[in-house]
Amino acid sequence: MFASAKIGRSLSKEAYKEGIEALRTELLEAQIALRERNIPVYLIIAGMEGAGKGQVVNALDEWLDARGVSVYAFWDESDEERERPRAWRFWRAMPRRGEISVFFGGWYLWPIEQRFAGAWDDAALDQSMSGVRELERMLIDDGAVIVKCWYHFAEDVQRQRLKALTRSDRSRWKMLPEKSHFSEQYQQFEEIADRVVRSTDIGRAPWHIIEATDPRYRDMTTGRILLNAIQKALAQPPHADRRLDDSPTNTDDELLPNSPETRITLLDSIDLSQTIERSEYRKRLDELQAELNDLAWRAYTHKISTVLVFEGVDAAGKGGAIRRVTQAVDARLREVIPVAAPTDEENAHHYLWRFWRNIPRAGRMTIFDRSWYGRVLVERVEGFTAPPNWARAYREINDFEEQLSGAGIIVQKFWLQISKDEQLARFEARENTPYKRYKITDEDRRNREKWDEYREAVNEMLARTSTPHAPWHLIAGNDKRFARIQVLETVTAALREALRNKAG
Amino acid sequence: MFASAKIGRSLSKEAYKEGIEALRTELLEAQIALRERNIPVYLIIAGMEGAGKGQVVNALDEWLDARGVSVYAFWDESDEERERPRAWRFWRAMPRRGEISVFFGGWYLWPIEQRFAGAWDDAALDQSMSGVRELERMLIDDGAVIVKCWYHFAEDVQRQRLKALTRSDRSRWKMLPEKSHFSEQYQQFEEIADRVVRSTDIGRAPWHIIEATDPRYRDMTTGRILLNAIQKALAQPPHADRRLDDSPTNTDDELLPNSPETRITLLDSIDLSQTIERSEYRKRLDELQAELNDLAWRAYTHKISTVLVFEGVDAAGKGGAIRRVTQAVDARLREVIPVAAPTDEENAHHYLWRFWRNIPRAGRMTIFDRSWYGRVLVERVEGFTAPPNWARAYREINDFEEQLSGAGIIVQKFWLQISKDEQLARFEARENTPYKRYKITDEDRRNREKWDEYREAVNEMLARTSTPHAPWHLIAGNDKRFARIQVLETVTAALREALRNKAG
Repeated sequence: MFASAKIGRSLSKEAYKEGIEALRTELLEAQIALRERNIPVYLIIAGMEGAGKGQVVNALDEWLDARGVSVYAFWDESDEERERPRAWRFWRAMPRRGEISVFFGGWYLWPIEQRFAGAWDDAALDQSMSGVRELERMLIDDGAVIVKCWYHFAEDVQRQRLKALTRSDRSRWKMLPEKSHFSEQYQQFEEIADRVVRSTDIGRAPWHIIEATDPRYRDMTTGRILLNAIQKALAQPPHADRRLDDSPTNTDDELLPNSPETRITLLDSIDLSQTIERSEYRKRLDELQAELNDLAWRAYTHKISTVLVFEGVDAAGKGGAIRRVTQAVDARLREVIPVAAPTDEENAHHYLWRFWRNIPRAGRMTIFDRSWYGRVLVERVEGFTAPPNWARAYREINDFEEQLSGAGIIVQKFWLQISKDEQLARFEARENTPYKRYKITDEDRRNREKWDEYREAVNEMLARTSTPHAPWHLIAGNDKRFARIQVLETVTAALREALRNKAG
Repeated sequence: MFASAKIGRSLSKEAYKEGIEALRTELLEAQIALRERNIPVYLIIAGMEGAGKGQVVNALDEWLDARGVSVYAFWDESDEERERPRAWRFWRAMPRRGEISVFFGGWYLWPIEQRFAGAWDDAALDQSMSGVRELERMLIDDGAVIVKCWYHFAEDVQRQRLKALTRSDRSRWKMLPEKSHFSEQYQQFEEIADRVVRSTDIGRAPWHIIEATDPRYRDMTTGRILLNAIQKALAQPPHADRRLDDSPTNTDDELLPNSPETRITLLDSIDLSQTIERSEYRKRLDELQAELNDLAWRAYTHKISTVLVFEGVDAAGKGGAIRRVTQAVDARLREVIPVAAPTDEENAHHYLWRFWRNIPRAGRMTIFDRSWYGRVLVERVEGFTAPPNWARAYREINDFEEQLSGAGIIVQKFWLQISKDEQLARFEARENTPYKRYKITDEDRRNREKWDEYREAVNEMLARTSTPHAPWHLIAGNDKRFARIQVLETVTAALREALRNKAG
């Protein structure tokens, strides 16, 4: 992979001077076009120690308009980062549409370090790279440009470079003693780098191997690669993003979801006639809430986090069910996120970004009142997003939830269902109670007219996104009390099991 | 202060039932009006241990529309919080305009705990409360409503309550053993609480002492207090906020800044004819950058953070000066924040919120390319905000910077000045360099026409906001090289001194 980076390429001072002005002008023009077209760019700067990655970034800093460029080094983790899925720190650093995020090492540095330190074997590295491919695929599907640069040079060049660095920038090497192993173990590092680069050198986000021996060559090549990548993206027809687009231009190989198995209507399986006696309800509610209070504290002690998702038809009783949970859990341990229309900052990012922002810290509980499933429900039914976007979302959501669960977070999802008659009765009751009147809007009425379309969307969602690590629970909601007890029983059972596993 | 909270007030079940429906309806109506009028509300829930603060929040949760209410408990700090000024965690939790943030304990809990634990004496507590008054004043000036509730009861009531809690909610008390002292030391706690409540019981944000013996009385009283406060704010004419308002309705006692001392034009004191030889520049640049690299690493080791602010007339060379700093400091240690138009999330908060978001973690450096001083420069000159708002900002900014400096952060501010002729020459040069053409906009031309108005605003800014802990440095910018060396010398000197103080 790296032979091309050991042939001593360089650029004369004159050639550099001659080319640089045109390059800067074109880069700025590209950056302006990028902003107009709302394309987010990820520039990953990775490679050998001593290759001058910091200098490359300084050069780009000078060439580009600083408004719209952010530089991130993923270095020592904060406890807020440690307590969440590993990818959380990258999610926090996502560029807005039309802006450029420069990532030192990107999502590649940590896996390489794990393998190099011997904490991982090749299989673990490969699995991690498969996750990286998924992440990059998702970002590209969302319209992003990913430019990956790997800086490399021959062993003797690196040896000289590190020696020189040690003289001129001593403090740095004092600070990072563990990094100095890299030069001694050039061979081993290169082998790992080769494995990483090969397994993530994908068509839509290829690696660029750049020889780092000569700074002028290195910097200008980087500038040209970035420019080319942006220009290529600009030459594409606009990406079908969050708005409805009749002619989806996404060339993805994703199948549209017409597979027959989704015709099995899971919703039909809910027995809506189930009820619970009022006295029995009181008793169970007290028991379950007392237990949940205790479990939530124990989960805190064991740093087990919980994500609860509540979805359901309008007036199904989501709010009441959520309150029965929050009443039981100490307010310091839980947060409710009501999901409404996105802000412009949220709209300027991937649709999952607003949820990534709200992942709980260790031992806490976050309750989503509506969630990322809006993508495959309201956005699909109302046509707010093009079919390829919501079709792709099943996979993106499964992947997202797998990352949560992989980080040890309990993920439980509730679908609250009521019958169409019961919904009408509740709408009417709300209109007759002054303080409930605010809860009913014209939108609710309109949604009701699309009952069957929503039903189809819900069935498909349940079929495609119910996974062992993030199951859907279908809750029969015609009897509110019955629904609440079901929810509390499910939540307590999940916490109990997680705590048992922790102890065992 | 608390005698009124020990007389056994209660509310019968019937009275509660009778009143609750009207209260809920009115609260929802008030919440809707709040949203339309863009008024942010802070509800502080503080008081004795065992008073049922969590239950109050649960009741409000049920009564209010959850979209637009966030609940925050400031409990165990994360390292990201610990590494910033103490108020940072509150800044993170500020409500958007039109929304309600409920704060458990608010900014009162920690000072009370410090005093109670004996870590502070009365003087330290008083000083802290003076900071609290400043904070609340700033928020109210920004149009916020602050509702402060203190829940209290007699000693014997608390003793019974804590005993009962220990039975029903054991896990909680297992978790918080240090809190159980509170009941034993009722007298001492009440004395401290009295001091805190008295010293922050200000006209525009009074304390409400609520007897917490009877839950129905406690909850409904809270609801009524919140409702009254919102209704009172709604009855006021609209607050002159970020838009220009010809008739400022702010009844603040702030003086408009016409005091004679600001007529001294500090800008005149800059000798713009100063230059440096090119060879001397090269030599000093190398020396200073090498030293800065070392200092930045040492500051990292000693967890000393730095905030640099760059302001200046258009084309004064801010970007070039900033790059001479960033070239020297490892990219992992610094971040540049270019300040452009605010996003809607930023607009929905206090104008300082967007800067609070970007305070560096321990040992890092954040460089602001333009800053919060926009409030007293562009917003003032262009009339984007009403006079009382920018007039008030001097004090708010001084207070903000004092908090940074109080948390051990180095704050250095640079004003880059060039002559009017030099600016014209640079505008013309930019137009003749293709990649620089993008740096010049019609706005720059317009700003140039307001040269004298800006000059007056700058002079006043320099006079009012140059403080020992956050000094302004006037940089003669006609010779770019001279300016850069001045900046580097100032930054290295500040870091050197901070490190010496740390060591000494």
